[in-house]
Amino acid sequence: MAKNTNIRISLPAVCFVWQIAMIILFGVFIRYNEESDTRWIEHRRRKNISTNLENDFYYRYPSFQDVHVMIFVGFGFLMTFLKRYSFGGVGFNFLIAAFGIQWALLMQGWFHYLDENDGKIKIGVENLINADFCVAGCLIAYGACLGKVSPVQLMVLTLFGVTLFAVEEYIILELLHAKDPGGSMVIHTFGAYYGLTISWVLYRPMLSQSRHLQGSVYHSDVFAMIGTLFLWMYWPSFNSAIADHGDGQHRAVINTYLALAASVLTTFAISSISQKHGKLDMVHIQNATLAGGVAMGTASEFMITPYGSLIVGFCSGIISTFGYLFLTVSFAVFYSTENVRNNVEVQLINTFDFKEAVANRTVNIQGGYQAAGLFVAIAFGLVGGALVGGILKLPIWGDPADANCFDDEVYWEVPEDEDENILSRHPNMNHTRGMPDA
Amino acid sequence: MAKNTNIRISLPAVCFVWQIAMIILFGVFIRYNEESDTRWIEHRRRKNISTNLENDFYYRYPSFQDVHVMIFVGFGFLMTFLKRYSFGGVGFNFLIAAFGIQWALLMQGWFHYLDENDGKIKIGVENLINADFCVAGCLIAYGACLGKVSPVQLMVLTLFGVTLFAVEEYIILELLHAKDPGGSMVIHTFGAYYGLTISWVLYRPMLSQSRHLQGSVYHSDVFAMIGTLFLWMYWPSFNSAIADHGDGQHRAVINTYLALAASVLTTFAISSISQKHGKLDMVHIQNATLAGGVAMGTASEFMITPYGSLIVGFCSGIISTFGYLFLTVSFAVFYSTENVRNNVEVQLINTFDFKEAVANRTVNIQGGYQAAGLFVAIAFGLVGGALVGGILKLPIWGDPADANCFDDEVYWEVPEDEDENILSRHPNMNHTRGMPDA
Amino acid sequence: MAKNTNIRISLPAVCFVWQIAMIILFGVFIRYNEESDTRWIEHRRRKNISTNLENDFYYRYPSFQDVHVMIFVGFGFLMTFLKRYSFGGVGFNFLIAAFGIQWALLMQGWFHYLDENDGKIKIGVENLINADFCVAGCLIAYGACLGKVSPVQLMVLTLFGVTLFAVEEYIILELLHAKDPGGSMVIHTFGAYYGLTISWVLYRPMLSQSRHLQGSVYHSDVFAMIGTLFLWMYWPSFNSAIADHGDGQHRAVINTYLALAASVLTTFAISSISQKHGKLDMVHIQNATLAGGVAMGTASEFMITPYGSLIVGFCSGIISTFGYLFLTVSFAVFYSTENVRNNVEVQLINTFDFKEAVANRTVNIQGGYQAAGLFVAIAFGLVGGALVGGILKLPIWGDPADANCFDDEVYWEVPEDEDENILSRHPNMNHTRGMPDA
Repeated sequence: MAKNTNIRISLPAVCFVWQIAMIILFGVFIRYNEESDTRWIEHRRRKNISTNLENDFYYRYPSFQDVHVMIFVGFGFLMTFLKRYSFGGVGFNFLIAAFGIQWALLMQGWFHYLDENDGKIKIGVENLINADFCVAGCLIAYGACLGKVSPVQLMVLTLFGVTLFAVEEYIILELLHAKDPGGSMVIHTFGAYYGLTISWVLYRPMLSQSRHLQGSVYHSDVFAMIGTLFLWMYWPSFNSAIADHGDGQHRAVINTYLALAASVLTTFAISSISQKHGKLDMVHIQNATLAGGVAMGTASEFMITPYGSLIVGFCSGIISTFGYLFLTVSFAVFYSTENVRNNVEVQLINTFDFKEAVANRTVNIQGGYQAAGLFVAIAFGLVGGALVGGILKLPIWGDPADANCFDDEVYWEVPEDEDENILSRHPNMNHTRGMPDA
Repeated sequence: MAKNTNIRISLPAVCFVWQIAMIILFGVFIRYNEESDTRWIEHRRRKNISTNLENDFYYRYPSFQDVHVMIFVGFGFLMTFLKRYSFGGVGFNFLIAAFGIQWALLMQGWFHYLDENDGKIKIGVENLINADFCVAGCLIAYGACLGKVSPVQLMVLTLFGVTLFAVEEYIILELLHAKDPGGSMVIHTFGAYYGLTISWVLYRPMLSQSRHLQGSVYHSDVFAMIGTLFLWMYWPSFNSAIADHGDGQHRAVINTYLALAASVLTTFAISSISQKHGKLDMVHIQNATLAGGVAMGTASEFMITPYGSLIVGFCSGIISTFGYLFLTVSFAVFYSTENVRNNVEVQLINTFDFKEAVANRTVNIQGGYQAAGLFVAIAFGLVGGALVGGILKLPIWGDPADANCFDDEVYWEVPEDEDENILSRHPNMNHTRGMPDA
Repeated sequence: MAKNTNIRISLPAVCFVWQIAMIILFGVFIRYNEESDTRWIEHRRRKNISTNLENDFYYRYPSFQDVHVMIFVGFGFLMTFLKRYSFGGVGFNFLIAAFGIQWALLMQGWFHYLDENDGKIKIGVENLINADFCVAGCLIAYGACLGKVSPVQLMVLTLFGVTLFAVEEYIILELLHAKDPGGSMVIHTFGAYYGLTISWVLYRPMLSQSRHLQGSVYHSDVFAMIGTLFLWMYWPSFNSAIADHGDGQHRAVINTYLALAASVLTTFAISSISQKHGKLDMVHIQNATLAGGVAMGTASEFMITPYGSLIVGFCSGIISTFGYLFLTVSFAVFYSTENVRNNVEVQLINTFDFKEAVANRTVNIQGGYQAAGLFVAIAFGLVGGALVGGILKLPIWGDPADANCFDDEVYWEVPEDEDENILSRHPNMNHTRGMPDA
């Protein structure tokens, strides 16, 4: 059955209406915070701050830009690996991230940054970082549906994904007081379960019809390495971007850097050993090398020692070959129950901010709350994914037929290459002779 | 008529002579400023500065590097989209930017940074940022001539472009006291008019002869997305790099970030709605998504509120489909007349530095000066472009024939691919059999 | 003779065993330093530090990330230029850099950062930068062996390379008190001699058998420009990353920025003049444009004046066409003997830290020590390269046969493209008809 993939009405409608809604909601709710307002000068005077460098901007902006690159170039190019879906990979990533960050500023603002005096959300550079974080969960979910959904479906996936994210994040960080600076639970676990559940609900029995488009070509694999490397290099910034100023941020970088380095070695090892002739597989290199960064997300600020970070990276590089899901679960459990216990309490008081409501938490109790946080993340992924998957199953979103998955032709004006793909589509090679002017 | 495109004498001559001229002029005029000189230690002591972090370097360097990436990777890769002009796109961009930043340090130095005591230009990290800014105008102009000029012509275009830029910038910023931190007027408007006027003067009636090379191929469009994304991601740094320390820089980032996000959504919407089958066009995604950053250039530091920034991005994404020119004009006018009026005066005093000579300017008067600044930028672009276009029309610069435009073969040693383009050039496919050793 | 290139046992064995060794050695030796430890709060109080920004992290982290990008994307993509070795170029670069930084933290730690009280190495962000620096030497050496060695050989090359590096660095910086902030001697000279000597020992008389794979294709040259540009743009960070806070770092950036700009112009000039038809050669543009950064490595912090930097860039762009080796030698000699002499003593006392043991060094004597440092770097490269080359000649490392050099097929699962290279390998084009489902 031919599906109607014409999105000429639906995509512009969604983009315009939702963007206008953003403008209205921003108009009602969002204002500059004290540090990004012209009143900063008075604020400085009042708080007796000696230098403009004490503005959080100068602690955070370089980290923000690194995270920003991860979201748009890192995730974007990681998804260009398919031979004929590079436009969709990097392009739709661009679209949904640009929408998601706006919606995230609102959702996270309502839950975390609402000024009780005037009912406004006050934003600064830390909010921009958190919005990028929030979108990362949806991009991970996009990865699970790559090539099989329409951009309109992706907008819906992102709308609900950001909403669910903000709620689970609020429960995990504010109610359970679990610690998750690099988002192992709230971003990676949630995003992976959310995306895979949607993909499972949208199961396509005849997907083998587009089998010829499911692989990579030589250059698309090199493009994907751009994504991998920018994710890998900037992951220390990701895990430290909203860590406490000073030693916390410093330590989060060191821990993540080391875990990432170790997981590269085990990824190469496992990739080689798992192939008959010992040849390396680009799919592993493009993905499993990042396991150390994912695994370190929850614990990046902890005093887990440099060799502890290497162990985390070592194990995560191995585990990730058994799948991303298993990785996120196993590590989050690991941190929740074991790792926390190894820390002396005084350090915990610093890193967990045990004070006020949670001042009398012991280490074991904190471990329990970390485990509870993980459970919440998984539950939101599964239930939310099932719900959103059901919505996306409606035949109104312009998704491609099974035979047209993984093909940019469906949603993009693709240049008529005089190249390899034309060759395979037009078996009679002589036809290419007449095409140089195309 | 066959044109002589051999640049073996002209290009090395221009490069050597102009580089030697730079060395001599730098020797006469350029010195380190107080913060980059070994006397910084004494300067610190004298000014009672408590920490090295107060050195402007630590406020500016991360922004500088982001801008630097925009100039060389952003603009460079944006220009790789043509199927057979990627070498020229990224390579000539590299050449003229490397020359332009040197000449800009001198030109901007004479106008803005001349030390009256010793007649020297004292440079620091802010000068490097400004030099990159200055070159951006020439790179925008290059975009308008892409594939149709020789590297020698581009050097001439850059020499005059930087000169004109420095003069119009001096008039707009120093004489008219207009505000333009992200360069909507001085960079984008000037650059666009300058380049388009040159392109118009160099009009090629027979350009259809190279029609077969004017499009993109699949991978060249993906390369161009590297440029687009690095421009898009780092544009908040561009618009904030020389903003005032503290809240000004903080706010410029937030405003630009939001405007850019909004223009992505309207770009996708307009791109889809403007095609018969609703398919997206890479040309729009590669260019119009950046409209929010361009539009926000003048106003980035203003207290235009977050929703105001979204509105700017929303409109600019739409307007930019009607062309870049219309965008730059309409927004610069908008800021000049309307937006300024909405700000309370106390904020203006902060952001416009109303003091000394301009202390008694009202908001309306400032709006008039902003409009005057826009007029100056356009006038310099038109008149300067006509002049330089006339010079470049002389038959001595090695420009390509109409049939050889958009072709790297003219100025580059191109590897003899066993690939798509060979196929189209050698219709008899059997010839490729003998080429694997090429 | 067919060689056994199956690395299914050897590569995983090396990766696992060495990574476990790293974990054990890190467990015994490596700890957080004061600034990245939770005790930072007490340290701050004790030292009366007023702000978290005084943590070295905030002086160094943006520079660290720039250097990190140079190592993984810069060097990685620079090595993708070969038509069929892009996986190996960027992939093996990733592997050996990830191993090398761990081993470098240990080796450099033992020589430079050992705490005498507890026998531990205390690491912070500066160590991460130094580890990246150290690896750069091995990556330069990799460039000299690109396509001709197995990943196991590269791991051995890196193990010994980092070891040799740490020793020569200790001799040059700590014993001779030579200054080399950007590593002209310790990184570039050592790395180049080390790699070329290994390549020479591993000489392959029949390498012409893989001649058809030794060139680039159009898109691989564009990929390589990503590497070139990220190296070029971030080189100012490379040469300033561990420079003294304040004016030293500021000046190192300015000097490197200018030298790089000048060497772009002379590279384009020499590239054009050296070809019969004046056409530019991508090999030059990809490499010689970086000469200014290399040449400025030793002197980046010096008061060599802006025009002095341009002269360095001008000359290095020319010299580098005669080869990389000649460049590193000639400039290191130049700095050692001439340049130092031009500085007034008071500046030298600041930049060279003439105090304690070396307080009574004159400028000429310092020049002698700089020359001695250069000699040490060359000697370590030659002798170490000969030694390691001999080890790598053993027939146990899975290196490719002469006919299989420069071919990713040997160590990678390469996607079966329906593209150019298939065409050249399967001269009977009709065979491609049956491949679209591959």
